[in-house]
Amino acid sequence: MPEYTGYKGETLEFLKKSQIGVGDSVRIISDITYLGIVMPRYEHGDDRHVVVKLKSGYNVGLETASIEKIEKIPAKEKTVKEPHAEKKKGLSRILLLSTGGTIASKIDYRTGAVTPVLTAEELNESVPELGEMADIDTEVLFSEYSENIVPDHWIQIAQRIAKCSEYSGVIIAHGTDTMHYTSSFLSFALAGFSTPVVLVGSQRSTDRASSDAALNLMGAARFIINDGSRGIWIVMHHDENDNTIACHAGTRVRKNHTSKRGAFETIGADPAFIISENTIQKNITRDYFNVKQFTPQIKLDTRIALVKYHPGYDPKVFDHIIDSGCRGIIFEGTGLGHVGRTMYQSIKRANEKGVFLGMTSQCIDGKISMTVYESGRDLLDLGVVPLDMIPETALVKAMWAAGNFGQIKDAMLNDMASEFSQ
Amino acid sequence: MPEYTGYKGETLEFLKKSQIGVGDSVRIISDITYLGIVMPRYEHGDDRHVVVKLKSGYNVGLETASIEKIEKIPAKEKTVKEPHAEKKKGLSRILLLSTGGTIASKIDYRTGAVTPVLTAEELNESVPELGEMADIDTEVLFSEYSENIVPDHWIQIAQRIAKCSEYSGVIIAHGTDTMHYTSSFLSFALAGFSTPVVLVGSQRSTDRASSDAALNLMGAARFIINDGSRGIWIVMHHDENDNTIACHAGTRVRKNHTSKRGAFETIGADPAFIISENTIQKNITRDYFNVKQFTPQIKLDTRIALVKYHPGYDPKVFDHIIDSGCRGIIFEGTGLGHVGRTMYQSIKRANEKGVFLGMTSQCIDGKISMTVYESGRDLLDLGVVPLDMIPETALVKAMWAAGNFGQIKDAMLNDMASEFSQ
Repeated sequence: MPEYTGYKGETLEFLKKSQIGVGDSVRIISDITYLGIVMPRYEHGDDRHVVVKLKSGYNVGLETASIEKIEKIPAKEKTVKEPHAEKKKGLSRILLLSTGGTIASKIDYRTGAVTPVLTAEELNESVPELGEMADIDTEVLFSEYSENIVPDHWIQIAQRIAKCSEYSGVIIAHGTDTMHYTSSFLSFALAGFSTPVVLVGSQRSTDRASSDAALNLMGAARFIINDGSRGIWIVMHHDENDNTIACHAGTRVRKNHTSKRGAFETIGADPAFIISENTIQKNITRDYFNVKQFTPQIKLDTRIALVKYHPGYDPKVFDHIIDSGCRGIIFEGTGLGHVGRTMYQSIKRANEKGVFLGMTSQCIDGKISMTVYESGRDLLDLGVVPLDMIPETALVKAMWAAGNFGQIKDAMLNDMASEFSQ
Repeated sequence: MPEYTGYKGETLEFLKKSQIGVGDSVRIISDITYLGIVMPRYEHGDDRHVVVKLKSGYNVGLETASIEKIEKIPAKEKTVKEPHAEKKKGLSRILLLSTGGTIASKIDYRTGAVTPVLTAEELNESVPELGEMADIDTEVLFSEYSENIVPDHWIQIAQRIAKCSEYSGVIIAHGTDTMHYTSSFLSFALAGFSTPVVLVGSQRSTDRASSDAALNLMGAARFIINDGSRGIWIVMHHDENDNTIACHAGTRVRKNHTSKRGAFETIGADPAFIISENTIQKNITRDYFNVKQFTPQIKLDTRIALVKYHPGYDPKVFDHIIDSGCRGIIFEGTGLGHVGRTMYQSIKRANEKGVFLGMTSQCIDGKISMTVYESGRDLLDLGVVPLDMIPETALVKAMWAAGNFGQIKDAMLNDMASEFSQ
C-alpha cells in the first residue's frame, strides 16, 4: 500500500492513479526527464507539485499538470554496511557535541528527505577515521538546522562546554547558516576557556558522495590533537579541493557563499590556521583570547537590533525599535561608517534615551573610520560608537554585553576574543 | 584675528590662549607629534577635542587635555596653477554629471576640510587628459555625499539622463557609499537606454596624491569611446595598482571594502570589463539589458523594507513593518535562503495582507535555493519568493516595481538588467 504523506487534492489523485507513492524511485517526463525518489510533502504544501529528490541530492518540485509521464523504476538495494566505531585507549579525549545541521543529517533512503536526525554517536561512526585519531565521547544537545537556532541554544551550548574541562577539546557539529553567530557568542561567553572549541559543519550531508563532513570533522580533530590552541574556531573546507581545511577565528568569520564547500571566509585576513594532512600552518599571531583566566559569563539580552541603513530607509522603523524597549542598535552603515542625515533626529533621540549605538559597515571588509568625512563626525557627535568588527559579531557581542553588564559600551570596546579588525 | 568656527568651552579657551585658529598649520605634541591644519568643528561637536587634518589627508580629533604643546608653523604657499580645459573639435561627446561624493570633493587648503563642492566643470578641469579624449559637457545635478543620497535623487538623475540622447555616453560622478544602489535604480528605470551610463567615484579626493579620481574618470571615458556597450556600469580601480580599471554591471556590484581603492567587486563573476590603457577585455557575454527598446519607467515607492534575519531577531519588529503599510519585504536570509521558524506566523500574516516577500541571502555570493531543506520549502509554501540577486539590488528593484506596477512579484522575476546571478 503506497504512502502519500502530505499530498492532497489533484496531486494526491494523480499519484494514486499512477500507483506511485512516497519513497518510490521514479522516472518523470516533463520539460526534461527526471530520475529520483518521490518525497513526502510538508505542512504548508500546495496540491499542485510532486517533490522529487534527484540523484544529485537536490529536491525539485514538479508541477503535476506539466508531467507527461511518471513511472516506477526498481530501487537499488542498499549494500552499505553500518560501520561501528571502536574506542582505542591512550588517545586524546574529545567531546563531540551534536546540535543538528547538515553535518548531522542523513538522507532517509526511502523518502530522500534530508533531516537533522543523526546523533553524535552516529556521526562519529559515519567517520570511522575519527576513532583512530582520538577517544571521542559523543552527546546530542539538540537537533536543529542552524536557521532555527536561537540565542537560548547558544546558552545551552556554552553551559555544557563550561563544565567539560576533562577534554583536550570540544567539537560542535552545527548547521552552517548561523554558525558564525554561535561562534561569536561562545567567544565572549567562554572567554579564556583553556582548550579549543571547534565548530564544524558541512555543506553536503554525510551520505552524499560530495560530502565535506568527514574531512571537516577530521580536520577539527587533527587541529585539537596537534595544535590545541585555545579559542573558538570554525573549521570548514578552505576551498573546493579536499586537501586543505581552514580554521577561522570564530569572531572574524562569515558564511560568504550559499552553497560551495569553501563558503566560510576570515574577513580581512588569512584563516587563523590552514590544516592539511601533514601540517598545520599558523597565520594568527596573537592568543585568541585577551584574558588569561576562564570566567564564564553566559547571559545575554536579545533586545539589540541590527539596522542596515540604505537610501530610503524609513526612520520611523528605527523610532519604533527604540520605543519598543531596545537597549542597543548595531548599524550596518555605508562605507567608513555612515548613515544618511535623515536618521540624525532619531539617532539623537535614541542616544538621549540611553540606547547604545554602535557602527559597523555593510562593506563587511575594511576598517571603520568616522573622522574622515563630515557625516562620520556628525554621527560621533550624536553618540554613535565606531566598532571595528563584522556586523554579526558586533550584534552578538552587544547581546552578550547587555545580558552581563549594566552598560554596553565599555564591553564593546574591550578587545576580548580577536573580534577587532587588524 | 583667528577664527574658531564650531569650537566652544575649554577647547575654545585653549586655542585662544595658544593664539591658534582654524586654518593654521600646527605642530602638536601629545601622545606623538602631529603635523597638520586645524579644522573647523561641526554642529554637534563636543568641547574636548581639537580636530586636525594630517598631511596624510585624514583628520584626527585630539583630546585637548592631552595636548602637551601646540605651536603654529608657517604654511607653505600654494603654487599649483589652476589648469584650464579647452575643448577639442570632432571628439565623442560625453555628458559629465556631478552629484557630489569624494570624487567631486576638494580639500579647502585653509581648513583642511573635505567637502563635496567641486563642480563638474572643475572636476573636468582637474583631469586635463579628459579634454584630449572627448568633448565633455559638464553639469551639476546636486552635491551630496552618497550616504545622504535618497531615492528622490535617483529620480533626478534618471530624469536628466532620459533626456540626453545626443551624447555617446554619460558619466556620473557619485559618492561610493551608496553608488551601487543608484546604479541598480538606473538599471531598471532606464532599461534599454542606448548609450552607456557610467558611475564613477573615488576613494581619495582629487587633490590627494593617492587619488584614484583621475584614473577612474579616464577609464570611464575610455570605455564609452572605445567600447560603448549600453548598460549601467560602475567604473572603479580593479585593485590597488593603477594599471587596471574594472567596469562592473550596475546590478551585480557591491562596495566590499570600506577604504581600499579596489573596493568594488562584481559578485559571483569577473567584472564585466577590465580596462587598461591599451585594451578593454570583455568578460560579460550577454547584452546588459534584456529589452530592445528604451521605455523609461522612473517612478518608485520606498515602502519596501530590508530585513536581515539573525538568531534573536524580534518578529514584533517585522509585525510593525507590515502594519505600517509596507508593500514589500526583502529578506537577507541565511544560507540558501532561510529564516528561523520563529518568523513563520508573521510571514504568513504578511502574505495574507498581500505584502510581497522576497528572499535573498546574507552570504551575498551564491544562488538562492529554497527546495533543498525543509525550512526553504516551508517558506516557499508561505509565499516567499526566491530572488537570485544581491540584497541591495533586490531592495531597489522592489522599490522600482512598487512604484511602476500594481503588483511587485512579476516584475521581480523578470530578468531586466543582468540582475540575476548566473
